[in-house]
Amino acid sequence: MKNPASLDELIHALRCLPGVGPRSAQRMAYHLLQRDHAGAKRLANSLDYALEHISHCEKCNNFTEEVVCELCRSERRDATLLCVVEMPADLLMMEQAHCYKGMYFVLMGRLSPLDGIGPREIHLDRLLKRTQDGVVREVVLATNFTVEGEATAHYIGELLHTKGLKVTRIARGLPVGGELEHVDSGTLAQAVIERRAI
Amino acid sequence: MKNPASLDELIHALRCLPGVGPRSAQRMAYHLLQRDHAGAKRLANSLDYALEHISHCEKCNNFTEEVVCELCRSERRDATLLCVVEMPADLLMMEQAHCYKGMYFVLMGRLSPLDGIGPREIHLDRLLKRTQDGVVREVVLATNFTVEGEATAHYIGELLHTKGLKVTRIARGLPVGGELEHVDSGTLAQAVIERRAI
Repeated sequence: MKNPASLDELIHALRCLPGVGPRSAQRMAYHLLQRDHAGAKRLANSLDYALEHISHCEKCNNFTEEVVCELCRSERRDATLLCVVEMPADLLMMEQAHCYKGMYFVLMGRLSPLDGIGPREIHLDRLLKRTQDGVVREVVLATNFTVEGEATAHYIGELLHTKGLKVTRIARGLPVGGELEHVDSGTLAQAVIERRAI
Repeated sequence: MKNPASLDELIHALRCLPGVGPRSAQRMAYHLLQRDHAGAKRLANSLDYALEHISHCEKCNNFTEEVVCELCRSERRDATLLCVVEMPADLLMMEQAHCYKGMYFVLMGRLSPLDGIGPREIHLDRLLKRTQDGVVREVVLATNFTVEGEATAHYIGELLHTKGLKVTRIARGLPVGGELEHVDSGTLAQAVIERRAI
């Protein structure tokens, strides 16, 4: 006694999703076939459509349906600033914070030698070329403050310094509304080290 | 600044998967578009294929690509026994245990009034009709030993007793290899209550 072949194939195919193991894949397949045919159809269609229409922006490397994305085409952005983020979600967070009006470069990852992700995989050749357009003056490194994000920022910093560009890193410190009592000591220490005149 | 529309649509469509919230859906979409186009294409295809070809067996209600599934058509099974399980995965577990050679009925769920799952949703009308074929002598209830699984077994037991059928429940007790010291007291108590002569 086995599952129908097409059910096994669906279960196997669902495992391409990150974080989905054999049991979740099975549960998902049962759910779709039993209770959500409409959702499954929609998922199949949007996968097909996205695969066909989404690629990477030639300038910022973010996902887009065009050759150069809307943000990179905008004339209301400050083209002398280039902010480097790890993932598209980080770019969206920056935009939601309404604190930055420059351009972006999305690495689509972070350096992680153990996972085989080196400078090439995060498109540092393209980043380097992007910064050499004669317009960019400052590169703002906004990778995460994780070990890998920090290493990535350090690597890019070294790379760009040799090109005579101004390179900055977004600040570490207490979150807005944060209380000293509840913040971890590493963050507090950084907040003290990076204190600024008022 | 927003995601491309087709990316947002894909993220939204991924949320039809059970246990996938906005953040996982976003992570999955990025992963598929960035690193696994082949997997995404395969997933879309197998969803389409499964939706078109998989339905429920007329006899046992399990998923099948045929009208009546292979197991129900088999003449080597004991047609006087009908085992009731919650999900197809439970049927597979039973088969892997090589302990049962009768037929099955798959509820595709369990009674759960709070989730709006009543007797109709778990196809008890069809189960009742299935047991009235003049061949089935004994119905083996193999729903889970959870609150909902127990309630489901109790409900089906009451329903079938009125029809003059023998209804049994698989045993509770210690697992094979289980040690008294490490088993929970509820299970141990049941094992004592349901002790049998040797």
